[in-house]
Amino acid sequence: MILINEHYNKLTASYLFADIAKRVQKFQDENPDKSIIKLGIGDVTLPLPAACVQAMHRALDEMAEPGSFRGYGPEQGYDFLREKIARHDFQERGAEIAPDEIFISDGAKCDTGNIQEIFSTDTRVAVPDPVYPVYVDTNVMAGRTGEMQDGRYQGLIYLECTPENSFIPDLPREQADLIYLCYPNNPTGAGISKQELQKWVDYARDNKALILFDAAYEAFIRDEAMPRSIFEIPGAREVAIEFRSFSKTAGFTGTRCAYTVVPRDCRAYDSQGRKTMVHPLWNRRHNTKFNGVAYPVQRAAEAVYSPEGQAQVKNNIDYYLSNAGIILKAMQDLGYKCTGGKNSPYIWIQSGSDSWSLFDALLNKAGVVCTPGTGFGPCGQGFIRISAFNTQENVQEAMHRISKTLS
Amino acid sequence: MILINEHYNKLTASYLFADIAKRVQKFQDENPDKSIIKLGIGDVTLPLPAACVQAMHRALDEMAEPGSFRGYGPEQGYDFLREKIARHDFQERGAEIAPDEIFISDGAKCDTGNIQEIFSTDTRVAVPDPVYPVYVDTNVMAGRTGEMQDGRYQGLIYLECTPENSFIPDLPREQADLIYLCYPNNPTGAGISKQELQKWVDYARDNKALILFDAAYEAFIRDEAMPRSIFEIPGAREVAIEFRSFSKTAGFTGTRCAYTVVPRDCRAYDSQGRKTMVHPLWNRRHNTKFNGVAYPVQRAAEAVYSPEGQAQVKNNIDYYLSNAGIILKAMQDLGYKCTGGKNSPYIWIQSGSDSWSLFDALLNKAGVVCTPGTGFGPCGQGFIRISAFNTQENVQEAMHRISKTLS
Repeated sequence: MILINEHYNKLTASYLFADIAKRVQKFQDENPDKSIIKLGIGDVTLPLPAACVQAMHRALDEMAEPGSFRGYGPEQGYDFLREKIARHDFQERGAEIAPDEIFISDGAKCDTGNIQEIFSTDTRVAVPDPVYPVYVDTNVMAGRTGEMQDGRYQGLIYLECTPENSFIPDLPREQADLIYLCYPNNPTGAGISKQELQKWVDYARDNKALILFDAAYEAFIRDEAMPRSIFEIPGAREVAIEFRSFSKTAGFTGTRCAYTVVPRDCRAYDSQGRKTMVHPLWNRRHNTKFNGVAYPVQRAAEAVYSPEGQAQVKNNIDYYLSNAGIILKAMQDLGYKCTGGKNSPYIWIQSGSDSWSLFDALLNKAGVVCTPGTGFGPCGQGFIRISAFNTQENVQEAMHRISKTLS
Repeated sequence: MILINEHYNKLTASYLFADIAKRVQKFQDENPDKSIIKLGIGDVTLPLPAACVQAMHRALDEMAEPGSFRGYGPEQGYDFLREKIARHDFQERGAEIAPDEIFISDGAKCDTGNIQEIFSTDTRVAVPDPVYPVYVDTNVMAGRTGEMQDGRYQGLIYLECTPENSFIPDLPREQADLIYLCYPNNPTGAGISKQELQKWVDYARDNKALILFDAAYEAFIRDEAMPRSIFEIPGAREVAIEFRSFSKTAGFTGTRCAYTVVPRDCRAYDSQGRKTMVHPLWNRRHNTKFNGVAYPVQRAAEAVYSPEGQAQVKNNIDYYLSNAGIILKAMQDLGYKCTGGKNSPYIWIQSGSDSWSLFDALLNKAGVVCTPGTGFGPCGQGFIRISAFNTQENVQEAMHRISKTLS
């Protein structure tokens, strides 16, 4: 008899987005002439950078001719892209990462979701709260948790991110083996300093733990002192894996390209306590379950590193950061305590006792949609997330409406 | 302490391709003036169909403009593509498959590799021998097998495909829960009749088993009586999942698009023996660990179903089938027993006691590279696979050399 993976049954259905949609629909039905501005979703709105579009057109023309057509590429990605990433994103910032330590993929969601496979099912996993749900759900599916109770899965270690700790969690009191960190953070928009990140690297080294560092929002960092990669931290190569994406950096959410960095000296252990390298494990997974990213897409990603690409990407990120600044100022002027909005496209706003009350106020008084913090975990209760991904006109109009009606 | 998934240690390194490369290099070193013709690899050589290229250029232009830019698409794929697939590939052939039963992905390798996740680790898995290694390796990684012994993993059920059974295995004597089948077959090139496939569907229904049907080579079928989909078989919707790909159909190996069909009434069971639907499980996995295929790539795949696309795809497949016919005739004229070469791009050739002896003869006498059957499992011993994926000129020259030197 074919049996299902019953761990899937532990997953609790999220009614968050259905609930948001219902409330938005109700408002629209009752106010048919009011336009709604959506600042809820973490998806880019600016078109693909011209340098990327041009490179992709050229690569596609190559695919149309017998002499330049390309079939299967290397599962790990083409060298032309891996080399540019290694040099630009790491070596030029003093992080010694080699091209063959970079695995090109079709998304950071896939990579952060799949990475847990190469570790034991007995692994004690620590996740931030609030959290990007993929970290949690993929470990539930793999059987590393018990049932959910009071909004938390039994067996997971939750790292609370609150105003009291500036959204940088304290080191876990229990032993954690696998630790998910995300900075600049989704959803809180908080950044981390080198000093704070060093503490985590030291913890991992002292406790034979491993850090999964999600740097999908790295491109939003403007503070020169802030680490863009965990590999800027001494000692990190042995204890960390990093995830990056072109999604937010270059507007690739609908084009799909990302990468994961697994240093050659990143280590884990076997059940006898013997040190084992992680790179060949991830390489094996990649070879067995993945078949590479489309050649034209890899050429588009490569164009991000051209001088034109760099300028265009910077312009786009500046645009979103300027939106973030408008949102931050408007909400602070109304007296709300806010995090993020600098070095991040997200503004995390303290709403009082309940997320939905401020969500409803923004929707019903100003016609603006945000995301209630509860969707990201129990520590999200009492917060909302506003996203800077929209046109400047819409953001200005949204903040104008909010300022007028909530003050 | 962070522990690895030790099941990975059971995977035996395949030295097949390294061994092939070494022998080819030796031949080239000893015969620097001889050109080598490679008929080993299962990768397409003709450029992307013009209709696909044009559609992808257009979609890319949409991505360059604010009004038509697309960010995240639906994880399951765009409706425009799912609807065309459902109508053209299934409904028009009498197989009742709805658009929302189709999950667009970036490759059949990914899908056939990931699908086992949604089933229990206690599942008794049956795989063909010879076999596409992904079916086996992904189950080893998930812990469904013991160690390898005499070329086979303990705990797996091997379905022997031999000349005696025309490469259609007998029904398993032990109870199998999850059964991988691939027709037209890689590597043997064998086809399956509706009658034979009905036996497997009946077995699955009688034994509460599930069939994973890999139809990646469906486009090569020219025999009108041969099933192109398992869903042409009565009763299959409850007991089968099908994998398809644009890789071989439309030359997408470097462009990446495929799909998996999970009917709404496809069932499995929980540990209490209660019937459970598979569709929501795969949907949940897709939503959690995948973020959709690039919009321009989905538009390129859609163009396969346009009248121009259909004509171009048929031309390309005819070209490879004509190559296959040339190979089949030449090897049969030399007295070799062959399978495939019709309804398939692969020719599976009985080489005598040992695969490597014929491999070496073709390489050293004719400068032609094939794949030794042993690379696909113990039942591949005594066979070689020749692939039709090359230019017609190269295939003719290769067969000319082989006929001259081996006769």
